[in-house]
This record gives sequence, C-alpha cells and structure tokens, in this order.
Amino acid sequence: MGLKSPLTKQAGVEDDTRQTNLTLSEADLHDFARGAAFLGTGGGGDPYIGRLMAQAAIRTFGHPQIIHPSQLDDDATVAFIAMLGAPTVLNEKAASGDDIELAIERLSQRIGKPIDALMPAEIGGVNSTLPIVAAARLGLPLLNADGMGRAFPEIQMVVMNFEGVSATPFVIVDEHLNSTIVETGDAATAEGFVRTLAVHMGLSCIVAGYPMTGADVKRATIHETLTEALNIGRAIEAGRKRGDASGALIRYLSDSETYGHGRELFDGKIIDLRRETTGGFSTGHCKISDMTNPDRLLDLQFQNENLLAKEGDTLLAIVPDLITVIDRETAEPIPTESLRYGQRVKVIAAAAPKLLRTEAALNFVHPRCFGLDEDYAPIETLPLPQQS
Amino acid sequence: MGLKSPLTKQAGVEDDTRQTNLTLSEADLHDFARGAAFLGTGGGGDPYIGRLMAQAAIRTFGHPQIIHPSQLDDDATVAFIAMLGAPTVLNEKAASGDDIELAIERLSQRIGKPIDALMPAEIGGVNSTLPIVAAARLGLPLLNADGMGRAFPEIQMVVMNFEGVSATPFVIVDEHLNSTIVETGDAATAEGFVRTLAVHMGLSCIVAGYPMTGADVKRATIHETLTEALNIGRAIEAGRKRGDASGALIRYLSDSETYGHGRELFDGKIIDLRRETTGGFSTGHCKISDMTNPDRLLDLQFQNENLLAKEGDTLLAIVPDLITVIDRETAEPIPTESLRYGQRVKVIAAAAPKLLRTEAALNFVHPRCFGLDEDYAPIETLPLPQQS
Repeated sequence: MGLKSPLTKQAGVEDDTRQTNLTLSEADLHDFARGAAFLGTGGGGDPYIGRLMAQAAIRTFGHPQIIHPSQLDDDATVAFIAMLGAPTVLNEKAASGDDIELAIERLSQRIGKPIDALMPAEIGGVNSTLPIVAAARLGLPLLNADGMGRAFPEIQMVVMNFEGVSATPFVIVDEHLNSTIVETGDAATAEGFVRTLAVHMGLSCIVAGYPMTGADVKRATIHETLTEALNIGRAIEAGRKRGDASGALIRYLSDSETYGHGRELFDGKIIDLRRETTGGFSTGHCKISDMTNPDRLLDLQFQNENLLAKEGDTLLAIVPDLITVIDRETAEPIPTESLRYGQRVKVIAAAAPKLLRTEAALNFVHPRCFGLDEDYAPIETLPLPQQS
Repeated sequence: MGLKSPLTKQAGVEDDTRQTNLTLSEADLHDFARGAAFLGTGGGGDPYIGRLMAQAAIRTFGHPQIIHPSQLDDDATVAFIAMLGAPTVLNEKAASGDDIELAIERLSQRIGKPIDALMPAEIGGVNSTLPIVAAARLGLPLLNADGMGRAFPEIQMVVMNFEGVSATPFVIVDEHLNSTIVETGDAATAEGFVRTLAVHMGLSCIVAGYPMTGADVKRATIHETLTEALNIGRAIEAGRKRGDASGALIRYLSDSETYGHGRELFDGKIIDLRRETTGGFSTGHCKISDMTNPDRLLDLQFQNENLLAKEGDTLLAIVPDLITVIDRETAEPIPTESLRYGQRVKVIAAAAPKLLRTEAALNFVHPRCFGLDEDYAPIETLPLPQQS
C-alpha cells in the first residue's frame, strides 16, 4: 500500500541513512510539542492542547508509525491533514475525531483512491500534533516531513505549491460534520475559498488537501521536521538543566541541517500589545523594551505567525525566516495569542529552510505576500542587534 | 435511462392525461419568459437575459425534450440546476456553459450515478430559462416541474425540502470554474454555506443540488409549472391585443389548477424606492401611490422576491402567496431590480400552490422566515383593497 516496507515491518530499516526510526513516547510528546511551538513562530495554536490530543489518541489507538519520505513508493497517495482557523479560536475547540475521519474519507472518495499516509501541513503548534491524532485513529503511517518547516497562515504557502503540486481537491469539515470540497485552478484561490468557509464554520475546522504521490513528497516537502521539532524541544529542556535554555536552543538551530542559523534578537519586557481577530486571522503588533536599556524597543508584527522584528528602522529579522518569542528564563515558546503585557521574553530568529528561500517559494512567502513593505533579507546577512 | 419512454421516442405519449407535450418555440420563449417573470414575483433576475440565453442554446444544441414527472421511472436520478446570486449582479453576468457542465459532472461524480433529467429549482426569471440552456447543452430531458411554483430567495424553500429530500450534495461553480461541493445535515445549513460561497464567488454562480429519484419528483415537486409560465405569458399577450392585459392575467390565474386565485391589489405610481444588495440578497421597500387618489399608498417589501403588500395597516397579500408588480398598460412583469421612481404599475397577487401552504412548507416559507412580523393569511381570505 504505497510503502516500501510493509506496515507490519519496523519503519526506518531501509538503506537510506538519513531516515529516522522515530517514535514519540509520552515524554517525547512534551519535547516535540515544545519544539513544534518554537517552529510555529507564534502561530498554529496552543501546543499543550495539541499535546493532550495526541496523548489521548495514542493511549486509545496506539502509536502511529512514523516513516521517512524515502520509505514511500513513488506512486503512493499522501495528503495533509490540519486544523484551520484563528489560534485564539482553535484553543477553545478541539477535533472530535469524526471530523478527521470524514475529511480523509471525502478526499479519498473524490480522488478515487485510498490515502496511504498522512503528513502535517506545517510543523507548528496544534498542526504538528493533530496529524499524530489522525494517523493513530486511522491506522495510517505519518510522514516525518511537512509542507513548511515552520508555520504560515495560508495554504498556498507550502513547498508542495511552490513545486507545482495542486492544493485541491481540498476538503473542509466542521464540528457538526458539515463538509465542503473545494476545487480551484490555483492554491491562492483555494485559500480564498477555504478561508471564507473557515470563517463561516466558526474559525475551527479540519482540512485535508494537497493529495500527492510519494514522488511529490520526496521532491516537494521538507523532510525530517518531526525529528527537528523533537530535537529542538530536547535542546531547550537540556539547556534548562544547565541554566542556559536559550543558548542551547540557538546552538541547536545553528547546527541543524534544516535551519542552520539561529540568533537572539532581543531580551526584554512586553510593554505594548495590539491584537485583533479579523478576516480569519489573528493579527497584531507587540512592543518589547530592552531589559537593561528601556529606551531600546523591538517592534514585532504578526499575522497568526510572527512576521517582522525591527528595532527603530533597523530590520532584525523578516519572514520567511523564523521569529519566535520565548520565555527569557525557560525558553518556552510563547504563541502570539499567549503574549501578555509585562512578560519577560527573548526573541529568537532562525534561518528558513532552503526550500522556502527559492525564487518559486518567495512568490508565495515574500514579505510583500504578508502586506509588508520590506524586502526579504536572509537572517544571516542582517546586522546583529547592538548589545545594550 | 430513467425515463419510461426512451429518449428517442416523443415525450408525452404516456397514458397520464395530465402530461403536456411541451416544446418551446422561439415565439413561445417570449411568452414563457414573461410568464416566468410573473411567477418570479420580482426575483430571479431579468427574464430577457434568460430568454436570450435559452434562444442561443436552442439554436446551437436543438430543443431539449421537456417531460412530465409521470414519464420518469421511480428510480431515475434528477437534480436541479440554477443560477444563484443577487438579481442585480446576475444581470451583469451569464453562464458560460462550461460552468453548467462542470456542476452536473461534479454532482454526478459525487453521487456515483449519471443524472437522467434536469429540473428548474424555481420557475422565476433566469432560473426558469437556465435549465433549458443546461438541458439543451447536455442533451438531457427537462422536467415540466419545479421546486417552488414561483421564486424564493433561499434553497431550503423548495417542496423537496418540505417533503424530506436532502438538499446535498450541493455543487457550486463560479465563472472561473472553481467549484465546491457542500454536504450538510439540513437544507438551511446548506443555504448558509452556499450563500457564503456565492458572496465569495461574486454573487453569480451555477448551482446543482437536491439529487433525487423519479419517485421524489412525482411526490415532492410542483408539476407542470413550465406550462403554467407559458400560459401566463400567452394570457398577457392575448389580453394586450384586447386592451385588457392585467384582466386577462387575473382571469388566467383564477382558472389555473396550480394557483387558483388572482387579484389586483393596487394601481398606481412608484413614489419611493429603497434598495440594497446585502448579505447576498437584494432587499428593499417600494411605495406606490394610487393613480386617482394619491393619498392612498401601497407599501411593498422585498428580499429578491416581493414579500408583503400593505395599505396602511391593512395587509393585502403576504408570502408565500405571489405578489408581482406589472406595467399598468402592458402587464409586463417588472423585476425588483428594474423598479424605478415614477413607473406606472399594477400590483397583482396570486394564491401560492397548495404544496407551499402545508404545515411542513410553512416551517420554511412562513412570513417570519423572511423576518416579517405578520402571520400568514391566504390571499383569498384577505379583504379586497378598497376601490378609490
């Protein structure tokens, strides 16, 4: 059924040395959710809710098999599964399970083929753990890969789209099991339909889309990002024990093959916060003043995810590179909807995976795609923030 | 394929004496569109655009076979096809044909069966002629029946729904051939999804839904309404030649088996008009002053279709009964979007078909379903307007 090794055989025994024999124990789920929250760059909903959902599903249905893209047959059929909505709303609702099954059933019926494996759309917040729930419940393998290597707010912002894989048929299911299937000429048009439907559905729904082949997965997704999330979470945890959580995080990011560069942008206190849920997104601004020199101010702008960090006129980091706010002591990632006045935080940036920096990718994830005026400048080319 | 008489055989030769061997010549199309505009009660878009579309389709593809519901096998598969949107917008766009084909193809794919015959959703304005276009283009028989016996603004307001036929799967296609399939637990929920999608699609789209059996059609639709539209149009035309167009119209309605009662509510001049396109509907008010006694005022309220006619506090007619504004000389029906200040008009009411007056029907088409405070009172029980 689309896998090189039969489902009964242990995953990860193929000859490709990069593949990881990944299982997520309950202890791992803590690290994994923390790492995914970091990669969520402020978006993707509350990682703790996602972790609880995954834990419950694993207890009921057992561990899903997590496989490397190289383990897929080229003609296997894969789709992504995700929750879609504003994080502020996602936190108040949770997938029932029936909605997940219905989404995959509708997609499979439309394309006339069973789905052989599931994949996360993005590796951030709830959407990194929801596919664990789905794979456990449906008894399907879960791919150690995703479409973004982080989180983004819109469904055209995935490598599959940059590389020519069709976003549709795209299925949306609400908590009452109302469903719609969207078919459009391009992914941005699909995003428009899906966002409109998501708002109609109360901004919390299950989506399944980007039906693709195993060959598509090998070529047009970011590999081993479940492993990256787990390792980032572990690095933070290990750093905490040495009293240097954010340092450990930055060192891990700089050594990572997927990201390759991490840095601290700012160390301060949140002094201003504006936020609204509009047009199906949580958008806003956050101002952070430096811990030792309160005249220094960082301006952070977000649309579900953090998009831009500036000190005065100096650009410090910009989308598609990753910008995440963490607790300054524990390095626990803080989603945008959990930012609060007075929080003491650090702001960390990391380089985006290479597949997000191609010309094709930047047609969809360039700063102007988020309504920003700035040009894209890779984090490693930007000046280091001045030390106060 | 679902028809008692094969498609190659002439329709209307079965033993059921009620059935009509209806063909619509180009001359007939004028009368048919005029009659359908009357039954549209102000909604359903401009009948002339619909007539031109039907004329062009018949010239290209030939006359569609028009069949009586009794000619269907009980297990035949039927669906309705319609345009959906605000009349003010419908007039600026027209179905391309590809959108019609795609809508039927998607519906057929979803239910896993070919569609054997098409039916109008409503017998009003563009939606009485669009199914002629669709049937001609697809080479499918068209049913001499519809879901409303008039026009209504929402998709739960059809006899099929009152009688328990599911509205979904329901397909919506836009002019760019983007499509969605909606599946919901009930027709009113489907209406919510479809209206949201229609607004997203620019308020002009092709819809196909209410997949049903031949047995459903026999039980849960209003029969021979294409014949009614043609005959109403002919009665007006014949009346014009005798200088009594509105009188001829009222006499025809009162003699009709489907409607059975017609009356003139008012004869006057439009002196006030408020109209807006909001939430996917054209809503508004129209005030008409009596021709001979300008102190007498009729207040007309509409949501796509005319809903309510009152003189002061006296209710003269109310939905689901039919209320249509016609030109006072020619009795040409005037859609709500063509009402203009200063027009000299008559307001005509007719009794709703019996299937719109059942308890089940009034759950969906009672005046309160349109946000009105009044109770329903059948037109034939209401006082005749005072003569000035």
